[in-house]
Amino acid sequence: MMDIESEVKRIAEDARKASRKMAVLSSAEKDAALNNMARELTANEQVILEANRKDLSAAGEKGLSSAMIDRLALNTDRIEGMAQGLREVAALPDPVGDVPRMWKRPNGLRIGRMRVPIGVIGFIYESRPNVTVDAAGLCLKAGNVVILRGGSEAINSNTALAEILKKACVASEVPEESVQFINTTDRAAVMEMLKLDDQIDLIVTRGGPELVRIVTDNTRIPVISHDKCLCHIYVAEDADRALARKVVLNAKAQRPGVCNALETLLVHKTAAPDFLPEMASDFKSAGVEMRGCPLTREFIPDAGEASEEDWNSEYLDLIISIKVVEDMEEAYQHIDRYSSGLSEAIITTDYDKAMDFLNKVDSAAVYVNASTRFTDGGEFGLGAELGIGTGKLHARGPMGLEELTSYKYIIFGQGQIRE
Amino acid sequence: MMDIESEVKRIAEDARKASRKMAVLSSAEKDAALNNMARELTANEQVILEANRKDLSAAGEKGLSSAMIDRLALNTDRIEGMAQGLREVAALPDPVGDVPRMWKRPNGLRIGRMRVPIGVIGFIYESRPNVTVDAAGLCLKAGNVVILRGGSEAINSNTALAEILKKACVASEVPEESVQFINTTDRAAVMEMLKLDDQIDLIVTRGGPELVRIVTDNTRIPVISHDKCLCHIYVAEDADRALARKVVLNAKAQRPGVCNALETLLVHKTAAPDFLPEMASDFKSAGVEMRGCPLTREFIPDAGEASEEDWNSEYLDLIISIKVVEDMEEAYQHIDRYSSGLSEAIITTDYDKAMDFLNKVDSAAVYVNASTRFTDGGEFGLGAELGIGTGKLHARGPMGLEELTSYKYIIFGQGQIRE
Repeated sequence: MMDIESEVKRIAEDARKASRKMAVLSSAEKDAALNNMARELTANEQVILEANRKDLSAAGEKGLSSAMIDRLALNTDRIEGMAQGLREVAALPDPVGDVPRMWKRPNGLRIGRMRVPIGVIGFIYESRPNVTVDAAGLCLKAGNVVILRGGSEAINSNTALAEILKKACVASEVPEESVQFINTTDRAAVMEMLKLDDQIDLIVTRGGPELVRIVTDNTRIPVISHDKCLCHIYVAEDADRALARKVVLNAKAQRPGVCNALETLLVHKTAAPDFLPEMASDFKSAGVEMRGCPLTREFIPDAGEASEEDWNSEYLDLIISIKVVEDMEEAYQHIDRYSSGLSEAIITTDYDKAMDFLNKVDSAAVYVNASTRFTDGGEFGLGAELGIGTGKLHARGPMGLEELTSYKYIIFGQGQIRE
Repeated sequence: MMDIESEVKRIAEDARKASRKMAVLSSAEKDAALNNMARELTANEQVILEANRKDLSAAGEKGLSSAMIDRLALNTDRIEGMAQGLREVAALPDPVGDVPRMWKRPNGLRIGRMRVPIGVIGFIYESRPNVTVDAAGLCLKAGNVVILRGGSEAINSNTALAEILKKACVASEVPEESVQFINTTDRAAVMEMLKLDDQIDLIVTRGGPELVRIVTDNTRIPVISHDKCLCHIYVAEDADRALARKVVLNAKAQRPGVCNALETLLVHKTAAPDFLPEMASDFKSAGVEMRGCPLTREFIPDAGEASEEDWNSEYLDLIISIKVVEDMEEAYQHIDRYSSGLSEAIITTDYDKAMDFLNKVDSAAVYVNASTRFTDGGEFGLGAELGIGTGKLHARGPMGLEELTSYKYIIFGQGQIRE
């Protein structure tokens, strides 16, 4: 292998050069490349599966859990799913060149705010191989060049996928260099990427808090990261009990391993006596383990004891922590202290409480009477997403095509000068 | 003086607490505080002037230039100007709570994207004392708490101003802690601020490249900074010569010390023979020193020789570098290599060239037939600005009230669950 630092630098310089071409491509040119990519993926199924088998056998040797191995495994259906994802991105409207607002100044200048690509995006992720394809497709559609840096467990699958995507570009107007892939799992490659603030405009991470910390501690490039996710639902005293049970159960148990799943249930003390025993029976039927505050345990005797660590835990599992609160103020304080600020919901029939909750809870998505499981670009109707931003700058919540753009002001004059 | 680190930490914790109150204040409550601040500034003129005299005498002892001392000096008019600025910010529409878009999903969920404050903004600046007042006013209007960290040369003026602004809050619903001021010039205070990513959501800097580098190298907090500004105007072969002369002269000489002033003029080789000698006579009348490429010096014999350093120089002075180019492609390459990406203009009568330039030049503001001097929040009709962002994330170009907000999704349901 070449010297890693100079190889990463060369990749980033190629990316920067390609980004200038990408920025001025037409929507048709980009969509043709995306559809090419989809075709090449299905045409190269055997190559992909062979590479994937290497990852699977390495995973088996390392003793990864069967759930992890299942996430890693590709098959005909999953490859077709990736291809279909690319075709769907091709069908989405092109955000680049869109001018959502244009206005005229008293001096006659016409000023518009036009969406433009961000440029070069470094994407550092630890996920299933399909993320490689999704990320390449979304970045391309928004006119960006992506530098992909996937996790070690999927290195062979990702390398094969990236090679196919690059080759698919050759037959189109999109430069081959618009999809860059770092084919080493050596951490030195990441550290070098993080230094290249002249070439890379944005780093997006998708992985655990440790990865996020390493990235933010070692770069001056702007970072959008998906940090911890700890979601709450507050059941008010006036909540429709049946609606509350249905929504809470869905938020916790429909798919507990994802970031918009419920982790902590807060219940007003007046609702607790009748609501909690019924809710507990739903949880039991769904195999959800309960851990409660002392008051909760009065109404659910077989719930475990919730510790400070529980209020801080993103279980990502069939476990829920439950707390009975004195009033909304106590619910707000709990959310403010423990929430990761992604998704929070209130269940209430009271208009003022609903509006108060929407206004006061500072999370990326705040719900009234609905499951937190909808925090997702697709479910919001925004199209596919590169990730979820847990910070407040540029992209908060789902990072879709629009959030993959920057903007510039375009100004049409007739000789205006500043007096 | 107290231990600096713990003092800065206390300030940031107070700021975080206050930010929760600020986020839910009504527009009327914030506007009342802004108008109070304006009144208190004029009422305390003598206190401000006395503090300012200390800064001026220190500046004299340090041997600062008379231009610097003039920038620092306050008087009745300038204090009234600051107060007027606050009243104008009060009169602007409140960005917080604005829902620019709301849509309905097939499952009946209504999803809106609502503007909310960012939270706590650390503002690190080296500027005239009025920036202290402008920053406090803008951040307050957008529902943010600001932690002000001004330059050492204005420490006494800034301390006095911040004290008055804080006191003005006491008589309103805005918490006194919503304007925080670090009253030491010790660099340790900045270094401590940069560590507090749990308390501070965003750092905005306004100062030289050295300051920007120190900040971005030492924090994981998102940073919006105003880096170098090097603006270009390209005069095409078909440019209206009179319009070109008027616009170029304005962009260079109307106020050369500001970031949207012209630094490098690019001229198509066909326009050069008749345009450059005329332009040179305008420059000479305005006292502008010229430094040109060899071809430029054929048409302007008394121009100096431009070196590589000139193409890289933000003069901020009555000096201009001039280059004759073969074609638009060469102009693009020059801009791409040397521009800071803030403001670029083309002078042309050709429709296709105008559109090509708007599309291909990757700067925050791209002009056709107008002076670059309009890159400014007020001139764009966006209201006052906290600074100019030279990066591409979150705020590109003028950072006004809208860019001082984040957003959250508000979701109205009737029991929707994810299937």
